Amino acid sequence: MAKAHENHREDVIGRANVEDTPELLSYYDDLEKYHTGALWTVANKIEPWEPKSQSVPVVWRYKDLREHVIRSVDLVTPEKAGRRVIYLNNPGRTDVAAAVGWIYAGLQVMNPGEVAGAHRHSASAIRFIMEGRGAYTVVDGHKMTLGGNDFVLTPNGTWHEHGVSAEGTTCLWQDGLDIPFVNAMEANFYEVHPDLNQAVGYAVDDMTKTWGNPGLTPSTGKWSHGYSPMFKYEWEPTYVALSKYAGCTEGSPFDGVMMDYVNPTTNGPVMRTMGASMQMLRAGEHTKAHRHTGSYLYHVAKGRGYSIINGKRYDWQERDIFCVPSWAWHEHVNLDDRGDACLFCLSDLPVMRALGLYREEAFADNNGHQPIL
Amino acid sequence: MAKAHENHREDVIGRANVEDTPELLSYYDDLEKYHTGALWTVANKIEPWEPKSQSVPVVWRYKDLREHVIRSVDLVTPEKAGRRVIYLNNPGRTDVAAAVGWIYAGLQVMNPGEVAGAHRHSASAIRFIMEGRGAYTVVDGHKMTLGGNDFVLTPNGTWHEHGVSAEGTTCLWQDGLDIPFVNAMEANFYEVHPDLNQAVGYAVDDMTKTWGNPGLTPSTGKWSHGYSPMFKYEWEPTYVALSKYAGCTEGSPFDGVMMDYVNPTTNGPVMRTMGASMQMLRAGEHTKAHRHTGSYLYHVAKGRGYSIINGKRYDWQERDIFCVPSWAWHEHVNLDDRGDACLFCLSDLPVMRALGLYREEAFADNNGHQPIL
Amino acid sequence: MAKAHENHREDVIGRANVEDTPELLSYYDDLEKYHTGALWTVANKIEPWEPKSQSVPVVWRYKDLREHVIRSVDLVTPEKAGRRVIYLNNPGRTDVAAAVGWIYAGLQVMNPGEVAGAHRHSASAIRFIMEGRGAYTVVDGHKMTLGGNDFVLTPNGTWHEHGVSAEGTTCLWQDGLDIPFVNAMEANFYEVHPDLNQAVGYAVDDMTKTWGNPGLTPSTGKWSHGYSPMFKYEWEPTYVALSKYAGCTEGSPFDGVMMDYVNPTTNGPVMRTMGASMQMLRAGEHTKAHRHTGSYLYHVAKGRGYSIINGKRYDWQERDIFCVPSWAWHEHVNLDDRGDACLFCLSDLPVMRALGLYREEAFADNNGHQPIL
Amino acid sequence: MAKAHENHREDVIGRANVEDTPELLSYYDDLEKYHTGALWTVANKIEPWEPKSQSVPVVWRYKDLREHVIRSVDLVTPEKAGRRVIYLNNPGRTDVAAAVGWIYAGLQVMNPGEVAGAHRHSASAIRFIMEGRGAYTVVDGHKMTLGGNDFVLTPNGTWHEHGVSAEGTTCLWQDGLDIPFVNAMEANFYEVHPDLNQAVGYAVDDMTKTWGNPGLTPSTGKWSHGYSPMFKYEWEPTYVALSKYAGCTEGSPFDGVMMDYVNPTTNGPVMRTMGASMQMLRAGEHTKAHRHTGSYLYHVAKGRGYSIINGKRYDWQERDIFCVPSWAWHEHVNLDDRGDACLFCLSDLPVMRALGLYREEAFADNNGHQPIL
Repeated sequence: MAKAHENHREDVIGRANVEDTPELLSYYDDLEKYHTGALWTVANKIEPWEPKSQSVPVVWRYKDLREHVIRSVDLVTPEKAGRRVIYLNNPGRTDVAAAVGWIYAGLQVMNPGEVAGAHRHSASAIRFIMEGRGAYTVVDGHKMTLGGNDFVLTPNGTWHEHGVSAEGTTCLWQDGLDIPFVNAMEANFYEVHPDLNQAVGYAVDDMTKTWGNPGLTPSTGKWSHGYSPMFKYEWEPTYVALSKYAGCTEGSPFDGVMMDYVNPTTNGPVMRTMGASMQMLRAGEHTKAHRHTGSYLYHVAKGRGYSIINGKRYDWQERDIFCVPSWAWHEHVNLDDRGDACLFCLSDLPVMRALGLYREEAFADNNGHQPIL
Repeated sequence: MAKAHENHREDVIGRANVEDTPELLSYYDDLEKYHTGALWTVANKIEPWEPKSQSVPVVWRYKDLREHVIRSVDLVTPEKAGRRVIYLNNPGRTDVAAAVGWIYAGLQVMNPGEVAGAHRHSASAIRFIMEGRGAYTVVDGHKMTLGGNDFVLTPNGTWHEHGVSAEGTTCLWQDGLDIPFVNAMEANFYEVHPDLNQAVGYAVDDMTKTWGNPGLTPSTGKWSHGYSPMFKYEWEPTYVALSKYAGCTEGSPFDGVMMDYVNPTTNGPVMRTMGASMQMLRAGEHTKAHRHTGSYLYHVAKGRGYSIINGKRYDWQERDIFCVPSWAWHEHVNLDDRGDACLFCLSDLPVMRALGLYREEAFADNNGHQPIL
Repeated sequence: MAKAHENHREDVIGRANVEDTPELLSYYDDLEKYHTGALWTVANKIEPWEPKSQSVPVVWRYKDLREHVIRSVDLVTPEKAGRRVIYLNNPGRTDVAAAVGWIYAGLQVMNPGEVAGAHRHSASAIRFIMEGRGAYTVVDGHKMTLGGNDFVLTPNGTWHEHGVSAEGTTCLWQDGLDIPFVNAMEANFYEVHPDLNQAVGYAVDDMTKTWGNPGLTPSTGKWSHGYSPMFKYEWEPTYVALSKYAGCTEGSPFDGVMMDYVNPTTNGPVMRTMGASMQMLRAGEHTKAHRHTGSYLYHVAKGRGYSIINGKRYDWQERDIFCVPSWAWHEHVNLDDRGDACLFCLSDLPVMRALGLYREEAFADNNGHQPIL
Repeated sequence: MAKAHENHREDVIGRANVEDTPELLSYYDDLEKYHTGALWTVANKIEPWEPKSQSVPVVWRYKDLREHVIRSVDLVTPEKAGRRVIYLNNPGRTDVAAAVGWIYAGLQVMNPGEVAGAHRHSASAIRFIMEGRGAYTVVDGHKMTLGGNDFVLTPNGTWHEHGVSAEGTTCLWQDGLDIPFVNAMEANFYEVHPDLNQAVGYAVDDMTKTWGNPGLTPSTGKWSHGYSPMFKYEWEPTYVALSKYAGCTEGSPFDGVMMDYVNPTTNGPVMRTMGASMQMLRAGEHTKAHRHTGSYLYHVAKGRGYSIINGKRYDWQERDIFCVPSWAWHEHVNLDDRGDACLFCLSDLPVMRALGLYREEAFADNNGHQPIL
């Protein structure tokens, strides 16, 4: 007797709806022998009407996590652990260790005078500073000094290492990588630097000083890599930019006053597989709801408020991290009536756009606001 | 007592190597409560030294499959099944119904006078004709007539339907789609055409007649979609092109005389998520081995021979389909000493290239040839 | 007493209208001493309401010119003359030896067995074959054989030479270059090949065989020059393309069935400073009038008819050459009621487009047809 | 008897060298009747070995010109003159009213409370502020306030008008336009604004606040014009950028520390036909000599020094303007041993680059320095 086979039926015109019969089950057995199957048994499963994300919305609260991150300093040595990092493990994505979608994120801690070994990999990374003084990163010989809310790139294929100067304090930061995505694409390579650490070969912060100037580019500069030469984006000019822009835009109904971090040589995303933005929610602002494809990881850079994601309220304050899965409805609220709130967002939007997979929709009812479930 | 946690240790400098202790296991329990984990327990797993594909090499032989495909005509009606398709189910990718990597493929059969209902989806598709006369495809109102080894596009978001004219014969063809990839990106949408079938609004084969001319483009033509306007690529001019090119190139040591199907408005891939090529192995040609990232599905358009994939020989002849997983060593042999063999190849190379994830390596030893295991 | 100065007055609001006074004339004298002038005296001249071309419409009739071109063979040797060419000298552009605008054109003759010396220059050139068998051109070591209505490129900076094989017949062709433009831009360099003639280093016609295939590109091909790698565009596939395209387009009201010759790697113009197109006027077709910026030189590849340019009729037949200056009204008529007529057109349209200077206007009155003056 | 004809002979292999004979002179007469000529009589003239610019080097000294510019206020009214501008008239280019090559430049003066009428044209313009407070420019409804060394765009086709606020002081500035080039291309159109002046429709300085932020772009911003949306480039951030860049570059041997003003959406030139740069010559810096194609107009934004152009010394100080013609050798010297000097440069480099006509050469002898003639 033929064994059972999966069969996803829908009673809708244009969709597969074939009942199992002994003859068909036997046929399915035959197909299996040749590493094949009958499409109509799985068509409705693999061609859904719309995306249903495997990720779930989560808020990772800094007040919960901070002590656990710091505890790791006592529990493991850098030599044995490589890096002391607590990673964010979305309940729907534990199989790939992702925070949301195909994006990995972690909280890392480092003491003054420490430096991690240099390595490189096909995965691309960003680092967003949360607290402490003296953090720095070296990328292909370029050293960058880092302060709170600064954002640094360590792109695909670049040698990189993170450290904290001996004069600094204990530093914590968020890492963000496309490791799950690059693994899924079966394209991840990893190398340890032959000297374990790299020599610094340029003036400190040279890439930002050279490429991070408004409307100006070095006359003799050439850049042909697929990522931004402006390796570091500092918080202070970012906040100034948002404030200036806020003075001459109505903003987006869904996102307030929002700017994308860009590769200055292309005005495109900072890296090909991950993009980042910073958005300002003005005092008391409550945005309208929309949804779009792509996976989004928010880091509260300033202020406090809440987001409603698929009809549920998630409160957040400075340093909290939360995610919005693909095609989830979401809207944001700044709970401060006097000051602004700022959200840093890391996403795979560049992938969605480059491949023609981006799509968005506004919430039509209730003046654009979701009912809270 | 703390429960067990996964822990991937490597005794290599620069890699994580932390032994479990009761204190650490208890710490891991704590982390889990907050949807987090310790990176050093999984770092070596998620940052492999090089890709190890989940897909395995397979040859799907037409002589095995043809009768089973045709049998489906008697077993299910088009109304209930949607389409009578046997899909290729790679043993390592049955969870996502993929032939290799994130690529779906199937063999479809249709009788004269039949036509499938029109629909559209975010997934992109190609169709490669195997046998029969009278097949046609309609894409956004453009009708294309199809013969053996013709290759047609039904890109992301286009209304499309396949049929066989009443004057034709039973037709079989290969479908290829990026359904698994678009699902993985959580960006797949599906719609049935409101009229179930579309009206043809243009001269037959107009897109190929308009856009498929060497070194000439319509003066008033504009095209801004992310896919080729030349929806159909015919076998005859393709074979002529390969033959001409063969007369003035040494060819690639790894691939013989190889041409990519391109979007004539960009010279880039026919679609953003999938590309296609046709390569000619000259009489008796035995290529050298190399490996690269990306997933590749070959269809033998002409001739017979074998490929060595990761040290194992896989024989093939006309109409067979076989796959080469990411980073697998492979080389090809034409067993005909007098005539050429031609391989059609569908792949996700455009994704790998667009995202900076393409990498290749030549087989260094043994004059470039793998020892057969 | 102050001398006279030019002064272009217009009695229109927003335009300069300053009368000469003794004080102003004296002021103008002062300004001249410092290599300056008063803008209001010349503003209306240098800021015209719309372009007024210096070129005039001309038809160069082959029946008039052919004997004179051939006569040059007896009059001068290739050694002394370099090339035996009669150039087209627009009455409004004799200062720069241009046929129209900034485009040079000439008719060249060569006997069997002759070959011109190899040279290169910053100017770009095309060659369009008019009569004879055995013509060939070598560009950077690539040899191309040429027949009637074939069109070949010798781009900016490439070594090139023209010849006729000993087995051929006397050949005549049209040259077209951007010499006047490159001179005006003060960027023209000229070099004689150190060996006087170049070695052929590739299979004959390899560039067209490699790059001139519809919807196919060599997989290992790379091309980064600013001009097309498809050095030769043959008449036969061009005519086939126009015929196919004619079957599925209404055509342009102004130009009939028109295709642009393109660089297959960009779908843009064949060279950065000059473009070319071929248009088919269907049996009895009379197009509507329009005008646009840019300078256009037509060569009648097939058929007979006339064009109305700025209200005057200019009759033409096969092998005649005529020009349409910038912003001149023009419409074309095919006088054959049974067969088509084909016009090859060389222009500086790529310059106008690249620099944002292209503009066009349809003739609004009289159902789109100019009254003949 | 035949009349004389021009005949440019060179006794060099590969060049035309045909002596006049009665028979040839008679032949030349015949050719003239058909609006043609013999190429060999002009080939050496129109195909020079290298460019020989019609422009000559000139320094326009501000101390000479300032009073004459201001005098125009008393001599002509804005209503009659349109604008009170003294234009720079290169002795080699008086036929086209150009300062150098195809670039027009003028010095304009305006009193507080004045505003010029709005107009638009195909020519593109820049304005570089020299002295005074309260200057502003309106471009397509966007108002920009302007201070010393600020640089503003009024691109091809945009409505624009210049004014000085009633609270300001008399203002002087340099205009720069491609009028001669657009005229040469026979593509210049001119229109007076129907309302004579435009309404301001946006927050003051919005385009610079929105687009002029380092490494950040508005998330909802789209820009598809061929020119920069950042209409104003201010002096202060430009000087800061040069100072930062100077700290991490050796600079160019020919140009010191040099940055190009760019369109932030492309990193390309601010407009398609004209580009601009600002370069810092460090204390005591003496650059090496080179030459390149293109026409360059320098404005001394800060400091004093001299340039050696084609072997002759030209001294300059703040507010002086000088030109370097195409293919002229040039090197720059900062005469201040303690402070830097800054040169603003307007050029047609974007045209040269877009059309493949840019070429440069270093001065090989004498350690890179020209002997002064």
